[in-house]
Amino acid sequence: MQDIRVTVWNEYLHETRHEAIRQIYPEGIHGCIAAFLRQDGLSVRTATLREAEHGLTQAVLEETDVLVWWGHMAHQEVVDEVVERVYRRVMDGMGLIVLHSGHASKIFMKLCGTNSDQLKWREAAEKEILWLMDPAHPIAQGVPDHILLPHEEMYGETFIIPKPDDLLFLSWFEGGEVFRSGVTYTRGLGKIFYFRPGHETFPTYHHKDIQRVIRNAVRWAAPGPAMARARLGQVKEPLMPLSEQRENTLEQLNRT
Amino acid sequence: MQDIRVTVWNEYLHETRHEAIRQIYPEGIHGCIAAFLRQDGLSVRTATLREAEHGLTQAVLEETDVLVWWGHMAHQEVVDEVVERVYRRVMDGMGLIVLHSGHASKIFMKLCGTNSDQLKWREAAEKEILWLMDPAHPIAQGVPDHILLPHEEMYGETFIIPKPDDLLFLSWFEGGEVFRSGVTYTRGLGKIFYFRPGHETFPTYHHKDIQRVIRNAVRWAAPGPAMARARLGQVKEPLMPLSEQRENTLEQLNRT
Amino acid sequence: MQDIRVTVWNEYLHETRHEAIRQIYPEGIHGCIAAFLRQDGLSVRTATLREAEHGLTQAVLEETDVLVWWGHMAHQEVVDEVVERVYRRVMDGMGLIVLHSGHASKIFMKLCGTNSDQLKWREAAEKEILWLMDPAHPIAQGVPDHILLPHEEMYGETFIIPKPDDLLFLSWFEGGEVFRSGVTYTRGLGKIFYFRPGHETFPTYHHKDIQRVIRNAVRWAAPGPAMARARLGQVKEPLMPLSEQRENTLEQLNRT
Amino acid sequence: MQDIRVTVWNEYLHETRHEAIRQIYPEGIHGCIAAFLRQDGLSVRTATLREAEHGLTQAVLEETDVLVWWGHMAHQEVVDEVVERVYRRVMDGMGLIVLHSGHASKIFMKLCGTNSDQLKWREAAEKEILWLMDPAHPIAQGVPDHILLPHEEMYGETFIIPKPDDLLFLSWFEGGEVFRSGVTYTRGLGKIFYFRPGHETFPTYHHKDIQRVIRNAVRWAAPGPAMARARLGQVKEPLMPLSEQRENTLEQLNRT
Repeated sequence: MQDIRVTVWNEYLHETRHEAIRQIYPEGIHGCIAAFLRQDGLSVRTATLREAEHGLTQAVLEETDVLVWWGHMAHQEVVDEVVERVYRRVMDGMGLIVLHSGHASKIFMKLCGTNSDQLKWREAAEKEILWLMDPAHPIAQGVPDHILLPHEEMYGETFIIPKPDDLLFLSWFEGGEVFRSGVTYTRGLGKIFYFRPGHETFPTYHHKDIQRVIRNAVRWAAPGPAMARARLGQVKEPLMPLSEQRENTLEQLNRT
Repeated sequence: MQDIRVTVWNEYLHETRHEAIRQIYPEGIHGCIAAFLRQDGLSVRTATLREAEHGLTQAVLEETDVLVWWGHMAHQEVVDEVVERVYRRVMDGMGLIVLHSGHASKIFMKLCGTNSDQLKWREAAEKEILWLMDPAHPIAQGVPDHILLPHEEMYGETFIIPKPDDLLFLSWFEGGEVFRSGVTYTRGLGKIFYFRPGHETFPTYHHKDIQRVIRNAVRWAAPGPAMARARLGQVKEPLMPLSEQRENTLEQLNRT
Repeated sequence: MQDIRVTVWNEYLHETRHEAIRQIYPEGIHGCIAAFLRQDGLSVRTATLREAEHGLTQAVLEETDVLVWWGHMAHQEVVDEVVERVYRRVMDGMGLIVLHSGHASKIFMKLCGTNSDQLKWREAAEKEILWLMDPAHPIAQGVPDHILLPHEEMYGETFIIPKPDDLLFLSWFEGGEVFRSGVTYTRGLGKIFYFRPGHETFPTYHHKDIQRVIRNAVRWAAPGPAMARARLGQVKEPLMPLSEQRENTLEQLNRT
Repeated sequence: MQDIRVTVWNEYLHETRHEAIRQIYPEGIHGCIAAFLRQDGLSVRTATLREAEHGLTQAVLEETDVLVWWGHMAHQEVVDEVVERVYRRVMDGMGLIVLHSGHASKIFMKLCGTNSDQLKWREAAEKEILWLMDPAHPIAQGVPDHILLPHEEMYGETFIIPKPDDLLFLSWFEGGEVFRSGVTYTRGLGKIFYFRPGHETFPTYHHKDIQRVIRNAVRWAAPGPAMARARLGQVKEPLMPLSEQRENTLEQLNRT
C-alpha cells in the first residue's frame, strides 16, 4: 500500500468560541479527523484558517495526496490565491474530501461550476438516516446499509450540484427532506468526494461508521500510482499521415 | 411552440483582420449562425466583443433564452463582470451553446469547474468525421449517422472536461486523434451544449448538418416553460413533526 | 406537435377482485391514465393482461409511440414472446413508462439488466414526499418542488437498478426510508422512465401533479421525428483509405 | 492485498482450427491471459466452452472473484443455465471482464439490457489507436496516453450499449471509424469492464499495455472486502414511528 499523505483543513472557529462545541471536539474537528485517520497508518497533518496562508502553502500542498476540508462560517476569509493553489493541485491529481458545510466553500463551488452553496437547511437537532446506495463502491466497504444519526442539521434538496459521477448516500431527515449526502466527481486528475454529515454542535465525527466512510474516501481519492499525464497543447506532427498539404491556416494568414 | 429568443455572441476579430476569413463569413460567424437560426422562425439577435459590455448587458441577457458563444483569440478580453452575469443567467435557466474554441472561454471554464482549455490541437486542414453516438437525443434529430468535414482544425483528447451528461458526437481526425465533440451539461437550471466544429478558416457553419445540430441544440437548451424554482435557504418549519424540541443549535449557542 | 400514439397497459386484476379498489378506479388504472392522457389530445388506447396476446399484438405495438406499463401480481403470466416484442420495439425507438410495481415486470428487468425486482417494501399507508431533483428536465415542467402523498406503499433502497441516466425524483417515507422514484434510461433508440407512485389501494393516479409527471413523461419518451438509424453490421469499404492490403483475416483463414 | 481468484474463460475454437492462430496463442487465448495474470500473483484458473458445463460449474463460480470472458463464433452454444449462473454471481459481486467479441455474448447482452451485439465491423487488419480518456481511473494506472495497435479488426459506432458508468478508452481506426473501447458498468454488486481489443488473428494480448489494462481491470473488478448486503424484501417494522394506523392494505382486502 502506498503511503498516503493527508492534510486535514478546518476553519477552527466554532471550537474556539463555544465551550459546548469545544467539549465535543477538544482538539478541533481537524484534530478528531486527523486522529482516526492516523489509526489507519496514514501520514496526516492539519491546517487551519488563521495560520499563515491558512496553513496551505505551496510546499504543504505539494506534499499532500488528499486534502480534507471542513469550513462553515468564514468561507469568504479564504483568500483566492489559496483557493487557486488548491484547485491546481486537484487538477494535478490531489484528492479532495469536502465535508458538511464545505459545500459552500470557494474551492468546492469552483470545482462544481455551479451554485453549490444553494440548498435547504434547518438547524433543529433532528434525526438523519444515511442510506447506502452503492455498496460495491470502494468508499462503501464496511459501511452498513444505513447509518442513523440521532441529531444533525438538516440539508434538503434541491442541492444545486452537477450530476454526480457516483451517488453513494441519500439522507432522510425527520422533518421530511431528503439529500444527496455522498457524491463523487472527477476534475482534471483529481477525485472529489462530498460527504454531508458533520454539524459542529453534534459528535458526528466520533461515529465509527462516519469515520469508516471518511477513511475509505481518503484511500479512494488518493492519486493513482502511475497516472498518464498526456502532453496537451499543440501537436504539430500527426500520428498518421495526412492526405493533403497544410493550407489556409491562421498561422499562414497571420504571415500574409 | 414557445418563442425562443436567441443571442449569438461572437468575438468577431478574425473576420475583420483576414480577407480569407471574411470571404467565408462576410457577415461574421455570428451573422451566419443568426441567419440560419432565423430561418427556423426564432427571434435572434447578435452581440460581439467590441460592443459596450460586449453587447451582453443585463437587459439583453434577461431577454435571452439561449446564448450561442463563439470566441477564440481574445478570451481574456471578456470582462469578469459580464462572465458573472452570463453565469447567473445560466443558473437561472438560460441555455448556452458553446462552439469550437469557446471551450477555453472564461464562461465555459467556470461552468465546467475544470481546465477545459486543455486539449491537443493541430491546425492542418485535415479531415474530421463526426460520429453520432446518441441518435435518440433531441439534438440528433435529422442528423445523419456521420458528418464528414473535409478540412478542420484538430482537437484531440484528453479534453479536460467533467464527465458529460450526454455524449452526442465523437470526432475522428485524419492525423490519428479522437475527440468528444458534442457534450451536454446541466448547471443550475441551465442546459449547456458544447459543439466542437467551426474553425474560422473553414466554411463549417455553412454545412447543413452542422446547422441542423445547432438548430436542434438551441431548442433543446431553451428553458422549460414551467421550471420549479425551489425556495432554498433556511426552512424553519419542517413538513413533518419532529420528535424532540430543538436543542443545542448554533443560534442558541450564539445567544449565550 | 406530432401526434403521439400511446398504449396504456394494465394487469387489471386488482380492480376486478376488490370492490375497494374498483371504487378508486372504476374504469381500471388503465382507464384513469388513458383519460387524463386523452385530455392532452393524445391518441390513446388501452390493453390488459387477459386480452389475447395481452392486447399487445405486433400490429398494436407498431402503432404505439409510447407504452405505459402497470403490473403487480401477475408478472409471470406475461408470456416471453410478448416481452420480446415489446423489447424489440423499445430498441427501435418506442418509449416506455414503467409505473410502480412494474419495476418487477419481465420487460423492465430485461431492459435494466439487473435484479430490479429487489428493493425494500412495506404496505402501511404511510406518507410519501416526492422531491423534484432536476427541475430543468422536460418531465419536470409544471411539477412543484415536492409532491406529498398522504398514503402510499413504501419502496426503499437499495433498489437494484443500473445508474440512471437522469434522477428526477427522490422519495421520503414516513417510516424512515428513501427511494429513487423517478429515473430515466435509454436502451437502443428507446427512452424509458420509471416512476414509483401508484399503489392500487390509493387514489394516486387521480393526483394532478402525478398526472402532470406522466403526461410530461409520455411526451419526453416519444421517439424523435427523425432518428438516424445507422446501418450496422459489416462495413467492407472504409470511409478512408487503408495503408496496407488486407491480410490474415479469418475469412482468408477459413478458405485455406 | 486480498488474494483475487480469477477464472479466464475462452471459447477456444479458433485456436484449434487454424494453425495461424495457434501460432499466436499456442496455449489458447485463455492460456496467454492466464499467464500474464499469474505474473501478478493472482490465483488463476481457466475454463473453455467444450468442457462440461463450459467449465463454469457452480463450484467454480463460487470460487471466482473475477471472470474474464472471450468468445466470438459460438455465443449460441453457451447454455442458458450457465449464463444465468454467471449472471447471479455478478449480481452477488463477482467482477466480469468482457473482451472483444464478447460484446455479443449472452451474458454481456443480458447485463446490458440492450442489443450490444449491434455495431459496425470490418476485418481488414487496419491500424487502431486506443486513446486513454480517464487517466485518474484505477484501470488506467501505468497505461500510456495512447496505445497503437498495428493490426486489428475494426469495431465502429453506433455500439448499442447503455450509457457507461465510466468511459476509459476511445478507439480511432484507420478506415475512419471510432469506438468506445473501454467502458464500465455496475450491475447489482458486480463490476463489469468491457475492453474491445483482441481479435484472434493478431497478437494483441501479447502487447504489454493491453496486458496492463486487463491486469488493472481484474483488480478494479474484484468484489470489495466488506460489501453491505442490504436485507431487501418486506420490511414490516419501520425505523421511525408512523403517524397513523395501517389501513386499506391489500393484505386486509384479501382477508375480507
